[in-house]
Amino acid sequence: MSRPRVYLAGPEVFLPDAERLGELKRAVCAAHGLDGVFPLDGEPLAAGPPEALAAAIFERCRAHIVSCDTVIANCTPFRGPSLDAGTAVELGFFLGLGRPVFGYTHVAGDYRDRVTPDGLAVEDFGLADNLMVEGAVRASGGAWIRSQAPPGSSWSWLVAFEACVERAARALGAAAS
Amino acid sequence: MSRPRVYLAGPEVFLPDAERLGELKRAVCAAHGLDGVFPLDGEPLAAGPPEALAAAIFERCRAHIVSCDTVIANCTPFRGPSLDAGTAVELGFFLGLGRPVFGYTHVAGDYRDRVTPDGLAVEDFGLADNLMVEGAVRASGGAWIRSQAPPGSSWSWLVAFEACVERAARALGAAAS
Repeated sequence: MSRPRVYLAGPEVFLPDAERLGELKRAVCAAHGLDGVFPLDGEPLAAGPPEALAAAIFERCRAHIVSCDTVIANCTPFRGPSLDAGTAVELGFFLGLGRPVFGYTHVAGDYRDRVTPDGLAVEDFGLADNLMVEGAVRASGGAWIRSQAPPGSSWSWLVAFEACVERAARALGAAAS
Repeated sequence: MSRPRVYLAGPEVFLPDAERLGELKRAVCAAHGLDGVFPLDGEPLAAGPPEALAAAIFERCRAHIVSCDTVIANCTPFRGPSLDAGTAVELGFFLGLGRPVFGYTHVAGDYRDRVTPDGLAVEDFGLADNLMVEGAVRASGGAWIRSQAPPGSSWSWLVAFEACVERAARALGAAAS
């Protein structure tokens, strides 16, 4: 019987050791009876003009996403007060597919407290990010883990991720190995 | 015959004159034979604890989204180098529903040039934002308008928006009024 498949969304793909981080996340998934699918998985892409390469990367991610039963998204703020933009699109993609969305953040504070005043309304619901993020997770039947990573370890910390994996495995009826 | 419905995604909801901006966008849609649906449309929400209010807003947006044939998303950078996080989730939602996504930005420059160096890889594909954004638009059969708003008019400028409305009306076979 094939194991449930989990898309591993997040900004890890931009790190110098992205492949190693993908390997670690896959190992955590495997220990819980799940197949982790990292965005960079698959055959190396052919060289080409930048726009064609971007389209090929998109297509690879899209194919991974539609092949997965769920997503576990690293929603830690990235280059601003909110999560990585690509991760946000992918999380919405799963919502539209009607599949559960699991998410976590390594910054426990409220979104409101990270926004530099700019004269515009700032959401003030005690949430960690824009309400569409946590709303998507809850409405989809997934789970949301809000935690604070130990100083300096935001990228290597796997505690919140593993908490999501546990919830996802239970929700998908995976058999732990 | 009912007119095609267009969800009007974007950070306008955070502006002091959000309702007026929604009204303007709806008028542009109507002139092209489309029904614009602004995220804030609908009955006023009941007062309640912050998390319940956030959930009610999410649910209202979700209901609007599933009732719409397409989305036109304002993807102008918001509080960072990328688009508003909620807009990104909504754009992905439409992708997952298999409906076309139209998007525009009022900042013509490359994403790469807006990122403060942080030791992580910066996408360098000549795109205006994370490749998942423009990728979603293209893969869905929508259109992407990249333009530079005149100084000081980013919120009131409707030229790029109307270009999207025209494309959407054509794609959906709307009858211009």
